[in-house]
Amino acid sequence: MDLVIVGSIGLDDVKTPFGEVKGALGGSGVYASAAASFFLKPGLTGIMGIDMPADHLEILGKFDLEGVERKDKTFHWEGFYEYDMNEAKTINTELNSLASFNPILPESYTKAKFLFLGNTDPDIQLKTLGQMKGKPFIVLDTMNYWISSKRESLAQAISRVNLAVMNEGEARQLMDTPNLVKAGRMLLDMGPEFVVIKKGEHGALLFSLNGFFSAPGYPLEVVKDPTGAGDSFAGGMIGYLAKTGDTSEQNIRKAIIYGSCIASACAEDFSLNYLKNVNLKEIEERYHVFEEIRRF
Amino acid sequence: MDLVIVGSIGLDDVKTPFGEVKGALGGSGVYASAAASFFLKPGLTGIMGIDMPADHLEILGKFDLEGVERKDKTFHWEGFYEYDMNEAKTINTELNSLASFNPILPESYTKAKFLFLGNTDPDIQLKTLGQMKGKPFIVLDTMNYWISSKRESLAQAISRVNLAVMNEGEARQLMDTPNLVKAGRMLLDMGPEFVVIKKGEHGALLFSLNGFFSAPGYPLEVVKDPTGAGDSFAGGMIGYLAKTGDTSEQNIRKAIIYGSCIASACAEDFSLNYLKNVNLKEIEERYHVFEEIRRF
Repeated sequence: MDLVIVGSIGLDDVKTPFGEVKGALGGSGVYASAAASFFLKPGLTGIMGIDMPADHLEILGKFDLEGVERKDKTFHWEGFYEYDMNEAKTINTELNSLASFNPILPESYTKAKFLFLGNTDPDIQLKTLGQMKGKPFIVLDTMNYWISSKRESLAQAISRVNLAVMNEGEARQLMDTPNLVKAGRMLLDMGPEFVVIKKGEHGALLFSLNGFFSAPGYPLEVVKDPTGAGDSFAGGMIGYLAKTGDTSEQNIRKAIIYGSCIASACAEDFSLNYLKNVNLKEIEERYHVFEEIRRF
Repeated sequence: MDLVIVGSIGLDDVKTPFGEVKGALGGSGVYASAAASFFLKPGLTGIMGIDMPADHLEILGKFDLEGVERKDKTFHWEGFYEYDMNEAKTINTELNSLASFNPILPESYTKAKFLFLGNTDPDIQLKTLGQMKGKPFIVLDTMNYWISSKRESLAQAISRVNLAVMNEGEARQLMDTPNLVKAGRMLLDMGPEFVVIKKGEHGALLFSLNGFFSAPGYPLEVVKDPTGAGDSFAGGMIGYLAKTGDTSEQNIRKAIIYGSCIASACAEDFSLNYLKNVNLKEIEERYHVFEEIRRF
């Protein structure tokens, strides 16, 4: 097992100006695993209900599921996006089985070289990384809810990972500054070697002790559903790192571009529909678009 | 005369969380001319009062002022920026002499190879470009006020220029779409060969019939006063184009990066203070930073 991904497994009802889906497969762990799957087979750790439909189970079957517990009902999220597609508005959240999620990593997972802690309770992130043996390269994602409600646990978790990733609003909120460059440098001071700030359509920023990288956004004319794009970005990034086994800053730059390629494909359709139409060859074509659009 | 710049000449009172200035030299024509001056001596066309202080006249003396009319009081703008520095809030605007501005280009200006129509009334922009002889390369800047109040004149002006530049909010407003890539392509349909969308800290996008370029933002930890950064960006861009005489897409990409270098220097201090401390060598150093932060 090269890569373990911990995160939510969910059923989503999503409405955007371009349509809607009900009971679609979702969750941070699922989106990240799907993105990582372009490069290798990840081991997913999470919890889902016994109500998961057969067609979703088929998609989940592409991942190693030894770390997935099944009981009760699946986590359910209902939300919508308005015209500008910038922010998900939640209508309803039912935690269901996720409320009792207590990750116990299978023995084979504990020796993974790469660990992705998807957006969940930072106490669960800490509990998970405490089970790892050896010295895995750990990427952590988080969100505004945990910054407000569990700041101390989150700070402790961030201090123990190699790379922290969050979106621009979350970085500004956590570091209490409107300036993203300052926020990125302050996040480095919390402990990680690398910090990635996601900026949606504007791309992403990478901060390290000696470096700074600004990745452009992929030029999308149609965004049908941004749900899971951030998780796909992070999953694609760590998937590429795990496949290449190279965590140099130079390779993390490439990994960020691959993550952006996959996230952009994800946003072009609802839920995980893009997986049906996009293969690694098309991801590589998007990578070449990135090379072209930043040349000067 | 290689480059003519048309725009406002003003006295600004600006307050930001980092300090304030009163009666500072400002205006779209002045900022653009100062930026272009890194590359060549521009001819400024505008109107100012007889109240312009001697120290400001010294700075203006770096430009060719044959096209500048002097009467009454100088245009005055008073505004402030809040914590996030994203948007200027206007407290007071006194048009003064600018209310009667009717640009008559000196004979030598009408044969310029490059013309920058800074952010002013689109009817004045049309009147100015109608005086040009030959086939100059024309760049036009605008703002939300003209999009709301003079949409038809603005559309006519945009159809007659080579490159239209505006910020992301203005592009979304004019094209009535939240998607910037779509807005950029729609702007091309209005007539110009090139469209540049400024995104502030997130950089800029260039659209052309066959190309797309995404320029990163310069990584600034301190923004003291964003006033004039957009004008400086456009002025630096056309200044570089006028100096090199090359309007290929490839060279416009470089020009956008030079414009970004100068705009970032502008935003690091109030008014035109940066001109005292920054020379072309430092602009070149920023250019190299751009090369480094975009490499993957």
